[in-house]
Amino acid sequence: MRLRVDLLPHGQYPDVVLVIDVLRATTTAVTYLERGADALLLTATPEVALALRGGEDGSPYLLGGERGGLPIPGFDFGNSPVEATGQNFTGRTVVMNTTNGTGAAHTAAQTGKHIFLAALTNAHAAARRARATATEEIAIVCAGTDGQVGLEDVYAAGVLAEYLLAMGEFTVDDGARIALTVRRNSGNPLEALSSSGHGQHLGRLGLGEDVRFAAGLSTSTLVPALTLDGDPPEGTLRFTAG
Amino acid sequence: MRLRVDLLPHGQYPDVVLVIDVLRATTTAVTYLERGADALLLTATPEVALALRGGEDGSPYLLGGERGGLPIPGFDFGNSPVEATGQNFTGRTVVMNTTNGTGAAHTAAQTGKHIFLAALTNAHAAARRARATATEEIAIVCAGTDGQVGLEDVYAAGVLAEYLLAMGEFTVDDGARIALTVRRNSGNPLEALSSSGHGQHLGRLGLGEDVRFAAGLSTSTLVPALTLDGDPPEGTLRFTAG
Repeated sequence: MRLRVDLLPHGQYPDVVLVIDVLRATTTAVTYLERGADALLLTATPEVALALRGGEDGSPYLLGGERGGLPIPGFDFGNSPVEATGQNFTGRTVVMNTTNGTGAAHTAAQTGKHIFLAALTNAHAAARRARATATEEIAIVCAGTDGQVGLEDVYAAGVLAEYLLAMGEFTVDDGARIALTVRRNSGNPLEALSSSGHGQHLGRLGLGEDVRFAAGLSTSTLVPALTLDGDPPEGTLRFTAG
Repeated sequence: MRLRVDLLPHGQYPDVVLVIDVLRATTTAVTYLERGADALLLTATPEVALALRGGEDGSPYLLGGERGGLPIPGFDFGNSPVEATGQNFTGRTVVMNTTNGTGAAHTAAQTGKHIFLAALTNAHAAARRARATATEEIAIVCAGTDGQVGLEDVYAAGVLAEYLLAMGEFTVDDGARIALTVRRNSGNPLEALSSSGHGQHLGRLGLGEDVRFAAGLSTSTLVPALTLDGDPPEGTLRFTAG
């Protein structure tokens, strides 16, 4: 079995893909499902999300997302896991659009057979799920920040790689070697996330609580999984707790 | 001053760029100049290189390059620093085309003001040259291998970053943080290069001597620098010892 870490999304994915955007899209996605959401619809653009809700009252959708860390006008929620923790999403579908994470999921879904969303908060469960599903390759795909590699995603990829290596034999690529080195030499999860450029950016925006939340290791067993069930609207990817 | 490490080439470069392809393009480029070459012409495709020589005898150009580690039909040399060490290039111009390194140089040259080629073999001199030239940013750009991050380039970027941080104050990005962590925790240069996927690939091709050569730290003071002098042919970048 091959274990591969893409420090930025790119290329072809033949089998299982774990998409990581620790700060904050995949962490928030896990939280929405933890708080009872039926499903998540990830859109490639904010416009698709806004069009889904339309003008009518009683839309089945709630909208969550950000641009540059800030809420998107017209959205209900700001891609904050801490904000999501205080809500009850039972029976609702949350439409998500974020700067990097939702785009990475769309890139992965173009070719991958099985797409899961992974964060530090569900790292162990995501690794187990990937191991149980894969037949030839597990690709861990870091979303990064605006096309630049993000330390927080590479650290989380290293955490996932470490779990996976404890579960079985893998041949690893240079991306995995780098992620494992970063994981083992960048302190604990909160230290790593706080020292990342994006962690510092969120701190300056007053969102340091989200960084602390995202640093919680394996606090959830929910793994958002891409599904073709439920007839997802055009331009969206539907994830459920599977 | 900003210090930035791109683990793969991309984006805009406002100031100084150090292009790294340790295995083997930039290591070989340094060696060609060490062995007396007047200049290097880096082409974006092998076709441009072959067209430059044309059919005539007495061409001023020698051709060096590889695809997937193997020599290119019609080329004189195979992008091997060890092979280059045994030659005398005095008065000659070497046209280079390689799988990753020459393309990375073309990407950097689209926007960068000052482009230098860096390897482990000229790391200290390249860092000094970059520090002396830059006014706002030094970007270290790793060529990678076929669009995937290469451990050997990230390690070398960490070596350059370490030299630069000893020369002055910088704000660093996540790429630089990752490269420094890899440099400090992946053993000595030969251990790092030998453990990389591309280092292992070259070993299987019987090119392990090139890997050992490329691991020589700061054995040269030559820094290939992009120049607009000498009227370089269309589709080429001309580098001299500057």
